[in-house]
Amino acid sequence: VRESSVAADSAERGEYRHFMQKEIFEQPRAIADTLEGRLAAEHVLPEAFGPEAEAVLARVEAVTIVACGTSYHAGLVAKYWIEALADLPCRVEVASEYRYRKHVVPANALFVTISQSGETADSLAALRIAKDSGYAKTLAICNVPESSLVRESDLVLLTHAGPEIGVASTKAFTTQLVALLLLTVNLARTRGMDAAAEAHAVGLLRGLSSQLEEVLAIDPQIAALAERFVEKHHCLFLGRGEEYPIAMEGALKLKEISYIHAEAYPAGELKHGPLALIDEDMPVVAVAPNNALLEKLKSNLEEVRARGGQLFVFADTQVPMQEEPGITVIRLPETDDLIDPLVFTIPLQLLAYHVATLKGTDVDQPRNLAKSVTVE
Amino acid sequence: VRESSVAADSAERGEYRHFMQKEIFEQPRAIADTLEGRLAAEHVLPEAFGPEAEAVLARVEAVTIVACGTSYHAGLVAKYWIEALADLPCRVEVASEYRYRKHVVPANALFVTISQSGETADSLAALRIAKDSGYAKTLAICNVPESSLVRESDLVLLTHAGPEIGVASTKAFTTQLVALLLLTVNLARTRGMDAAAEAHAVGLLRGLSSQLEEVLAIDPQIAALAERFVEKHHCLFLGRGEEYPIAMEGALKLKEISYIHAEAYPAGELKHGPLALIDEDMPVVAVAPNNALLEKLKSNLEEVRARGGQLFVFADTQVPMQEEPGITVIRLPETDDLIDPLVFTIPLQLLAYHVATLKGTDVDQPRNLAKSVTVE
Repeated sequence: VRESSVAADSAERGEYRHFMQKEIFEQPRAIADTLEGRLAAEHVLPEAFGPEAEAVLARVEAVTIVACGTSYHAGLVAKYWIEALADLPCRVEVASEYRYRKHVVPANALFVTISQSGETADSLAALRIAKDSGYAKTLAICNVPESSLVRESDLVLLTHAGPEIGVASTKAFTTQLVALLLLTVNLARTRGMDAAAEAHAVGLLRGLSSQLEEVLAIDPQIAALAERFVEKHHCLFLGRGEEYPIAMEGALKLKEISYIHAEAYPAGELKHGPLALIDEDMPVVAVAPNNALLEKLKSNLEEVRARGGQLFVFADTQVPMQEEPGITVIRLPETDDLIDPLVFTIPLQLLAYHVATLKGTDVDQPRNLAKSVTVE
Repeated sequence: VRESSVAADSAERGEYRHFMQKEIFEQPRAIADTLEGRLAAEHVLPEAFGPEAEAVLARVEAVTIVACGTSYHAGLVAKYWIEALADLPCRVEVASEYRYRKHVVPANALFVTISQSGETADSLAALRIAKDSGYAKTLAICNVPESSLVRESDLVLLTHAGPEIGVASTKAFTTQLVALLLLTVNLARTRGMDAAAEAHAVGLLRGLSSQLEEVLAIDPQIAALAERFVEKHHCLFLGRGEEYPIAMEGALKLKEISYIHAEAYPAGELKHGPLALIDEDMPVVAVAPNNALLEKLKSNLEEVRARGGQLFVFADTQVPMQEEPGITVIRLPETDDLIDPLVFTIPLQLLAYHVATLKGTDVDQPRNLAKSVTVE
């Protein structure tokens, strides 16, 4: 974010108490802006990534994504998408790790950086190393057009989230996910995704803003739910598949602004250690869309409940799960597997926001954190 | 571990209070046993992996490692080793995630599973999927010769840790690291590692048991240190590079047996969120060998200290870092980058052990956990 924005007048917050709250509610608009001009009737337009993008993307044989913090979580979601839909190997790594180790560069590989500001020091350093180490092309997914990351990358997809003032990233994250979905579909088409599947994806993207409006409507319910977290010092977030990075992002939001020690685990790892932590003081939040992993997730949750853990399950309306003692179910509108990560992000952002306001923390400027990490 | 072992008589614990303690102190012997017959004067012997191993390993062009819990952490260390020394792309994934997603199989790739018991349900399922999905060969690193994982893999490297009774894995982990180092050197030799480098690695392996004996000698100091953790409810573990997975393993041990909510982060990610959690109630443990990343790590630690965090730094004798208010330095013998992950594991195991005994938890059978996770 540019320096001038930090001094933004409170009038800019409009009806909202905090910039973060405003930015959460801006997401349908930010996503519509990010999609503007990037979709044809039944196609995703490769030109969105730059004039040479169509030719470049057709030659890609591997993808490496490097980012930090919330942007890293967006990259982790993309790994599931790219491997499943585009059948391309995808590696995702934290920039501060990538830049300091000797690594192997795959043939004809695309190096993708993700950063809201485009000035994240470790991501920028990783990009410079990648350019010297044999990557075929580089792509930046970024919210600031004049940033270093954008200037130094071959291809660029700008998210049009608008200035993000809250230190805890919200609309930057979901617009990054949209950008990564556009990338995935472009890559998948060159690798044989059929027209019907692409048209289906385009339809979901077109409906996304209104779908997220529906999700945002559960805000009062999440505000009430937040009361049950405000006295807690710990929280475990569980997900499986592409919802695991969403659980990570939910835990990070709660950490950043409410200072509750929240940690995410892929649900299948529960038995390999973290189950020992479960008791009545460690609430467990589960991200549970109605997908192929639901039965496995339910059996993980049963273990939590059997050990006295309090469960909070975010589930869509199709999930056959009942409230009972120890289990609170928060219902989300029915959705499609492809956009589940976006849909399930919203209530976790709202939960962190409401817990933080109840605790009275400085939501927009949490202690110890800066908006853009431009130092190493 | 075999069922009969669980009923092992307390006499088998000998001078030790708990099996876990005994197993921590058995590590020099377990590592010597794992190396027995597997090293020539200046070479690592490929036959250790099976009669056809030399030919198989020479053809490997990529490595995929799949495991759970502690074994997954061993795999994460190996990724740093394999990419840096053997110049081969290496992917590491949690078995419960790997088995349920569509993924891309690299050409001529070796699929490696790691499991103490060889009966871990998710790892076994992942192996079966890998065998059907085009992997060139499979390799099991396992402690139980008659296990399913061993029977169903093409190549096998048995760790000779002996029966591990404590639910929290210790000697199984370090012998897995030794096995992965043997694998790395074998792969590296076929990819051009020179004889001097191999001889250096063999020398380090031969000296490893006596080096770990030296590290174990700081046990009384760690026992005293544990008093400062016993009242804490949180802990952050930081590392960089191949010490990041060691930080993860240190956090997992503390979680498993002391029920303290410990979480690990790569130190460079601190500014992207967890720094918000730092205050006097959140001690920070850092794994700080004297390597190329030390200066970066020190600057991360300075941020922790500036925010009132209590720092506990495990550093070798070469690290120029002084004790001062807020910083406790625990000195380890000087070591070599290649074996740092093994050396730094020991004090973290001891720390978890002593914190747990002070808290009076059931060290060998922590609540909610089973030794072998043979269900999904």
